[in-house]
Amino acid sequence: MPHSDSTLSSPVSPKPRRGRGRPAHADGDAAPVSARLLDAATALFAEQGFDAVGVRPIANRADVDPAMIAHHFGSKLALWEAVVDRLSLRLTDRLAAVALGPGSASARLDEAVGQIIDLLCDAPELAAFILREVVLPSERSAYGAARLANPIHHILRPLIADVVAEHRADIDVDYLFVALNGAIVVSIVSRPLLDRLADPADDAQFRARLKATMAAQMAARIGI
Amino acid sequence: MPHSDSTLSSPVSPKPRRGRGRPAHADGDAAPVSARLLDAATALFAEQGFDAVGVRPIANRADVDPAMIAHHFGSKLALWEAVVDRLSLRLTDRLAAVALGPGSASARLDEAVGQIIDLLCDAPELAAFILREVVLPSERSAYGAARLANPIHHILRPLIADVVAEHRADIDVDYLFVALNGAIVVSIVSRPLLDRLADPADDAQFRARLKATMAAQMAARIGI
Repeated sequence: MPHSDSTLSSPVSPKPRRGRGRPAHADGDAAPVSARLLDAATALFAEQGFDAVGVRPIANRADVDPAMIAHHFGSKLALWEAVVDRLSLRLTDRLAAVALGPGSASARLDEAVGQIIDLLCDAPELAAFILREVVLPSERSAYGAARLANPIHHILRPLIADVVAEHRADIDVDYLFVALNGAIVVSIVSRPLLDRLADPADDAQFRARLKATMAAQMAARIGI
Repeated sequence: MPHSDSTLSSPVSPKPRRGRGRPAHADGDAAPVSARLLDAATALFAEQGFDAVGVRPIANRADVDPAMIAHHFGSKLALWEAVVDRLSLRLTDRLAAVALGPGSASARLDEAVGQIIDLLCDAPELAAFILREVVLPSERSAYGAARLANPIHHILRPLIADVVAEHRADIDVDYLFVALNGAIVVSIVSRPLLDRLADPADDAQFRARLKATMAAQMAARIGI
């Protein structure tokens, strides 16, 4: 699987180290310091996990002084929590707009799944972060459940329940919620494997196949 | 998520340390040294990941002398590979028997999925091991793909292809393979979350709900 590493590291590549005397938060940098730290932390936590990553590598990758982590977030744990919160806000913003929009429950659920796929394909390190730091149990699991899993569940559950009620009453809605999200996240992290098992896909093909697979997997289509 | 840790550690609990002078490989121990080392390594790699786990904690958990790892396996990496190989053999043994058995492709696929669910519910640390050490990319990804993903794909792909061909020609079989396995593994690792989101389930209920969810998610049922 030769490009497994590049899958994770390409969206946030390490920048060249800044020149001597250039301040850490120089004007002309594209993103604010806090956003650069969040990007760097997301990528490193996704690759190595919370415990293995120190604040210095995060600051180096963000090209800022390590003191900026304490200044902006307070601690490595608070930075981790901010990564979860930013991810949660991005997902719930998109999902809430779809869930409250027009159309049948089935169509809105398809659209919501498409939004999750698009967001995670735009930044595949988020899928790895979710698997390693939210799905796998850790001392941080309660935070991940409360701030990421629960809000998404709150938005998607009514849609899934409507779709299941329409077609099959004997499927547990919450199990379907977890299975659906698990299938999406694992598929995105497994893209290098999929490029070897199936015909290699460019980015648009990958998303289209994944959306078709998820739509096919949904109870939405069962009984139709 | 108070019982997230026990989910992982309960199947292979640390044994009490042996008394002074009692040999590491005393007669009367239930399992052979190599099997105890494989169990201990599986659980620790699943909880913490390959890089974070030293050979000494593995030997301690297996209640054997650390030199036994070199004696039986040669290295930590070779022990990790042996964990993958044992898991692969267990899964492919069960799946091959089902795949070659009687019944429609759809019925055999349901049965194969049930076998995967039963095996991983019997030892949930295997599901965490798969997520952390096979799905998430690492220097060991090529081995995991070659020795675990490929053999299972080889057995299940013809079943999935038959089912898809029967009902919908426009779903990518390999994407469905990854999505299906991803849904199973994430659901099993997420059991503590599911016990909070849904009605808490005893072990038999958990398996039954998961099998029903997976059957519902499969293209097997689409169009029926």
